[in-house]
Amino acid sequence: MPELKHLTWHEFSISKAKRRALSGHPSVLLWFTGLSGSGKSTVAAAVEHALFERGLQQTYVLDGDNLRHGLNADLGFSDEDRRENIRRVGEVAKLFLDAGLIVLATFISPFREDRERVRALMEPGEFAEIYVKCALDECQRRDPKGLYQKAQAGEIRDFTGIDSPYEEPLTPELVLDTAKETPAESAQKVLEYLKL
Amino acid sequence: MPELKHLTWHEFSISKAKRRALSGHPSVLLWFTGLSGSGKSTVAAAVEHALFERGLQQTYVLDGDNLRHGLNADLGFSDEDRRENIRRVGEVAKLFLDAGLIVLATFISPFREDRERVRALMEPGEFAEIYVKCALDECQRRDPKGLYQKAQAGEIRDFTGIDSPYEEPLTPELVLDTAKETPAESAQKVLEYLKL
Repeated sequence: MPELKHLTWHEFSISKAKRRALSGHPSVLLWFTGLSGSGKSTVAAAVEHALFERGLQQTYVLDGDNLRHGLNADLGFSDEDRRENIRRVGEVAKLFLDAGLIVLATFISPFREDRERVRALMEPGEFAEIYVKCALDECQRRDPKGLYQKAQAGEIRDFTGIDSPYEEPLTPELVLDTAKETPAESAQKVLEYLKL
Repeated sequence: MPELKHLTWHEFSISKAKRRALSGHPSVLLWFTGLSGSGKSTVAAAVEHALFERGLQQTYVLDGDNLRHGLNADLGFSDEDRRENIRRVGEVAKLFLDAGLIVLATFISPFREDRERVRALMEPGEFAEIYVKCALDECQRRDPKGLYQKAQAGEIRDFTGIDSPYEEPLTPELVLDTAKETPAESAQKVLEYLKL
């Protein structure tokens, strides 16, 4: 009969450190925050694409679409639910980091406290707050999903920038000025931050 | 000014199919179900270790420990919370599969309905129910965490096998008889199932 008693998961487990040593790149959480329409997803996609082209395939984008339709489908947009939404995103990102991936999270995440809570979940150096900065009027002009129009027509309530606040990062690791930079230029800045 | 309007995440996104083509292995969810002490974690760790040795590093173990302490820290052990626990595990596993990883999930997951709900989240062929079969008296004899002793002393309630039922899989993809097989033998069966 096999002696399972003395075998534990921990003896076999493949550590984050071992995964990082083998992949040759860090596992970090790049947290893109900014107004709707500021270009978070566009820049994140450009970064992921550039990483992929360089052979770094262990990346993943976490965004509202893939979370709100699945894991967070039970959550609405109340303050409490928004907080829980971001909490779960942070915890999922932590699992991905543990698995050795570079995670690109794109969430408006308007509240400093929520973003700081995610930062606190990670080890030092694992979290980079990337402020995707773009003036509200420019975001409204772009309005890629037609959401500002709906918010101003009163069809959407508690919309960040319209009737709900956005708290700018105070000391972000990186600021991307997407009104002046192309997505490729912004992505390049992120790659330089990653030293990749 | 950059034209962000026509750039969407989807144009850039790196699909599951592309990730699989590049890694050369499928992304599947290996769902180990069975009584406490049946050997789920031990076998899963042996499988992950074997995959790792073969150069397949894009794997991750989801288990009660890494979930209950983080993402699911807000959940208890009521029927409703157990269901929500397994739902979230399924949704997280789905994200990992989307990222191209092989996921090994080790949860007692005593209820057929919950397991079937996870299966239904995945595409055909992505979910493998692996029944880690071991007689209750053998699991009690092993009692690696001393939990059966506590359950029998009434210190833990609703313990699967003692005062809460375990619903055996009816048509699992694989059955591992850990009372007769060594962990290495069980792991070998899983590798054969994966054709790896």
